[in-house]
Amino acid sequence: MEILDIVKENQPITSEHIADRINLTRATLRPDLTILTMMGILEARPKVGYYYSGKSLISVMGSFIKNISVMDVKSIPVVVSEDTTVYDAIVTMFLEDTGNIYVQNKGYLSGVVSRKDFIKITLGNHDIKTLPVAMIMTRMPNIVYCEPGESIFDAAVKIIDHQVDSLPVVEKVNDNDGSEKLKVIGKISKTTITKMMVKIGND
Amino acid sequence: MEILDIVKENQPITSEHIADRINLTRATLRPDLTILTMMGILEARPKVGYYYSGKSLISVMGSFIKNISVMDVKSIPVVVSEDTTVYDAIVTMFLEDTGNIYVQNKGYLSGVVSRKDFIKITLGNHDIKTLPVAMIMTRMPNIVYCEPGESIFDAAVKIIDHQVDSLPVVEKVNDNDGSEKLKVIGKISKTTITKMMVKIGND
Repeated sequence: MEILDIVKENQPITSEHIADRINLTRATLRPDLTILTMMGILEARPKVGYYYSGKSLISVMGSFIKNISVMDVKSIPVVVSEDTTVYDAIVTMFLEDTGNIYVQNKGYLSGVVSRKDFIKITLGNHDIKTLPVAMIMTRMPNIVYCEPGESIFDAAVKIIDHQVDSLPVVEKVNDNDGSEKLKVIGKISKTTITKMMVKIGND
Repeated sequence: MEILDIVKENQPITSEHIADRINLTRATLRPDLTILTMMGILEARPKVGYYYSGKSLISVMGSFIKNISVMDVKSIPVVVSEDTTVYDAIVTMFLEDTGNIYVQNKGYLSGVVSRKDFIKITLGNHDIKTLPVAMIMTRMPNIVYCEPGESIFDAAVKIIDHQVDSLPVVEKVNDNDGSEKLKVIGKISKTTITKMMVKIGND
């Protein structure tokens, strides 16, 4: 990392000058420069010196986030039933400090409500203390979700492409009547992803 | 990457077995294994084989995100003036599809309003078509912000620690009266960070 910082600030720079700044001999430095060049992080030009190329770092990072399963980072979802009133759902949203609430019918995912849904309904002339969330939620099949086999990268792509704040992590199960149902087992949100970035930096 | 995948699934595994699976000779494979071991991504135990150790990847990634400036990824902020009504601010929030709106007084940052602020005020018995956002916004000095010199990692830490959805990127300027003011030049949100992760994976 020290070598990279030096090259970034002084490129092109010869191995001799890098060695000077780091108080080592060129011979001691050689294995590190070889590795950084072979990884493609540094570029060596004969008689000119070393250049920094971010490419390989990105490819290493890309591969890294594609290998983190949503199961390893998922958070606890906030779930209510379809007959919960809009008012009670709003109170739950504040108490749990969540952006999206998932709605269940007989234990299976049936809808999602967002802060935007709450703003829209409170603007209108509705009795939110009796209106059930089922009346304002986004319903299946319009819910974007992810499954245990997906990576945090897959989840991030869905969040951005569909412009949603979170995805329920679901397990597909067959109901008694043979139809496919979704059981909510977690949540991946923009907060999950931001927290992951903080954790990576702190580690 | 192919070697890493093989080691992850079969560890501990000898170089001979890795070479078999990848259809190469041990000699051809040796430089790659040496690099991966020297980087600390693989661990080699004599007479046992290679193990996978995620450590160095994380340290490479951590260093990477600490080197991305907020200036390189910032998005365009949505800004209104203090006398904008709550109703108009809500309409702006929907039209621009943003979570936070920044409020300015004489061209300088004076407040932030969030979707939660809007839900709270629409629940109460207020005339939001005349009430100015200045009445409901979070004010300085309680606004968390970031400056051009900070990294996307610094911004992510502030977003998580202060439990906010976004940070204005500000430039500090001295007003005519000598007091320090904040000029909004951008925005870093959880969406910015999620988009960055998608970009890294796609690259």
